[in-house]
Amino acid sequence: MPSVYQRRRETVYDWMAGEGISLAMIEDAEGRRDSGLRWLSGQPGDALLFLSVERKALLVPWDLNIARLHADTDYLRPYSDFDRLPIRAAIKAAAFLKIPRGSRIEIPAVTPYPRFLRFVEALGGDFDVICREEEGLAAALEQFRAVKDDEEIRIIRRASEVTDELIDLLEKQLRAGKLKSEYETAQLIEGECRKRGCDGTGFETLAAGPERSFAIHAFPAYTASSFGSKGLSILDFGVKYLGYTTDVTLTVASSLTRAQERLTSLTERAYKLALGMVRPGVPSLDIAAAVDTFFEKSNKTMPHALGHGIGLDPHEAPALRNRGDNSWILEPGMIITLEPGLYAPRLGGCRLENDVLVTAQGGETLTASRIIRL
Amino acid sequence: MPSVYQRRRETVYDWMAGEGISLAMIEDAEGRRDSGLRWLSGQPGDALLFLSVERKALLVPWDLNIARLHADTDYLRPYSDFDRLPIRAAIKAAAFLKIPRGSRIEIPAVTPYPRFLRFVEALGGDFDVICREEEGLAAALEQFRAVKDDEEIRIIRRASEVTDELIDLLEKQLRAGKLKSEYETAQLIEGECRKRGCDGTGFETLAAGPERSFAIHAFPAYTASSFGSKGLSILDFGVKYLGYTTDVTLTVASSLTRAQERLTSLTERAYKLALGMVRPGVPSLDIAAAVDTFFEKSNKTMPHALGHGIGLDPHEAPALRNRGDNSWILEPGMIITLEPGLYAPRLGGCRLENDVLVTAQGGETLTASRIIRL
Repeated sequence: MPSVYQRRRETVYDWMAGEGISLAMIEDAEGRRDSGLRWLSGQPGDALLFLSVERKALLVPWDLNIARLHADTDYLRPYSDFDRLPIRAAIKAAAFLKIPRGSRIEIPAVTPYPRFLRFVEALGGDFDVICREEEGLAAALEQFRAVKDDEEIRIIRRASEVTDELIDLLEKQLRAGKLKSEYETAQLIEGECRKRGCDGTGFETLAAGPERSFAIHAFPAYTASSFGSKGLSILDFGVKYLGYTTDVTLTVASSLTRAQERLTSLTERAYKLALGMVRPGVPSLDIAAAVDTFFEKSNKTMPHALGHGIGLDPHEAPALRNRGDNSWILEPGMIITLEPGLYAPRLGGCRLENDVLVTAQGGETLTASRIIRL
Repeated sequence: MPSVYQRRRETVYDWMAGEGISLAMIEDAEGRRDSGLRWLSGQPGDALLFLSVERKALLVPWDLNIARLHADTDYLRPYSDFDRLPIRAAIKAAAFLKIPRGSRIEIPAVTPYPRFLRFVEALGGDFDVICREEEGLAAALEQFRAVKDDEEIRIIRRASEVTDELIDLLEKQLRAGKLKSEYETAQLIEGECRKRGCDGTGFETLAAGPERSFAIHAFPAYTASSFGSKGLSILDFGVKYLGYTTDVTLTVASSLTRAQERLTSLTERAYKLALGMVRPGVPSLDIAAAVDTFFEKSNKTMPHALGHGIGLDPHEAPALRNRGDNSWILEPGMIITLEPGLYAPRLGGCRLENDVLVTAQGGETLTASRIIRL
């Protein structure tokens, strides 16, 4: 039986055949991270992956020992064989995989313009080197990965269970007066997720107490400031399990003023409005626009998008953005965040975010984040 | 008195004038991080920065509240005014900063090829849009930033002090038998650095016990496996203070076999060899080549570069790499890592890394990482 990675590559090979691409290169490197590498090969990072339309995959990892443990490809060659230079590796990969002269080779969509010119200089005599955003492999992978397969849904369900255990634990400790600072709150997440078998957190935990919750993403991510004290505190975190991350935000509300209470109840109502609209066939723009309109009626503005897909990356397709260039339609198997929020310099901020699986019936919430009223 | 950011921008304005660039754009965004933004403006992230040769700086931040607290520029406009679209922001910035028609506008060196075409389509009628790697602004900034200014050296000295306190604490706790797992070791770093006023760690702490130290960068970064037990354990970490990170690696050696002892002593000797060669005017390639040659004489191969600069990024210029394309010459004010290491699947790995300031006299080690023999 083919591995999950092999099955995913088969989808890409079919796509390559349809596009007339003989060789495709995927790169994950510092400054140019691409979790497509892991999705297609199991290799967690720092490697080049070459896929030939003849249905063969060659991995060129920086660390051969890691690749031997994790990667599932047809061939393996250490990056040091090519002086760790992508262009040199591409030339050798084309020869090794017997790519015919004159064929099309697709390099990553994020290839910088000056580097693209060097690729063309090195390979353009023998091949047609292409680099595309909208119609290219990166966009195709984004589409494929937007709809999670059974293995991915299983993993994210488990990550969501751990997320919920942490939310419950957090609420309990807050009510018992055991968590006083942003730092203690963030450290609880970091420690407890690992005790439950997670790889860690999927992104830097943001814990912002009443003095700092006015920002969308507090900077620094957490400090020694108080958390859960009078006013609005925001905690935004995700746990990573087998590479997949959740992404939730809860708000801790304590002795709110009337104006703070209003931010909070508007956020909760916007969240319910959005969740009620989730079902297959709905343009995600419509949901984002409905929330923006809802806030506008109260003279409020949400300064960020309504949500996004999650997976190996904390931000994946589909976008849930109220902007003309968003053409995503919800499909069963997509896993998205809904995260309405409002922020004001003097009142603080409030955000409520959960992860939602799109099913044939509508939206199934995988996580149980909430407004915690102390 | 001009701020440190203003002084740095003056250097860039002079460079722009020399290059005939009227407007330069710097972008820090998810997937395209560029700490040049912070270096030039104080804004920690998620913004566009436009610099005009008329010596004016316009910041376009995602989060206006964060910018009001941290940024030091002439003008501030929220990104939402431009639908958070870089090309739209660039068009408006050119008008706002009164860039004359026909002038040269430089966009980031990492601009993907397809996006470069869209920039040219949108702006090319009025301006000459350029995107360069080797001769461009990114390369110039890399040069400027490779030599730290007094403010940066002061900050990194303080970060190094905290780093050393953590190393001493770690050794004490290891000798007292209080740290048993990779997880406890990494968590000690995470917790104690924040207690000492740091922003956190500069990159994900790597703690690899004897079963996992064979990899250059263990995956996952730390687990529940034992640390400091019989064999070779590696701890690679850096603390971040006011944005600047240190980067050190220590190896914990316990009841070594003869072969493991040999890896360890070769690593220590390579480190001393490298440190002894640090002084202004020396090509960094020469030091990296000397270490490679030293290991080769013992039939060993180091699978990574000898070191790199540190600063706002954990990896900055200069490179210390034994490769033909490395033309860096050491200068006073550079702060570099020296990190020789050897790895073997059955023996485990050993790496020793410290941060070194290049002074007129030679190399001043800022950190005191070491091989800890239990």
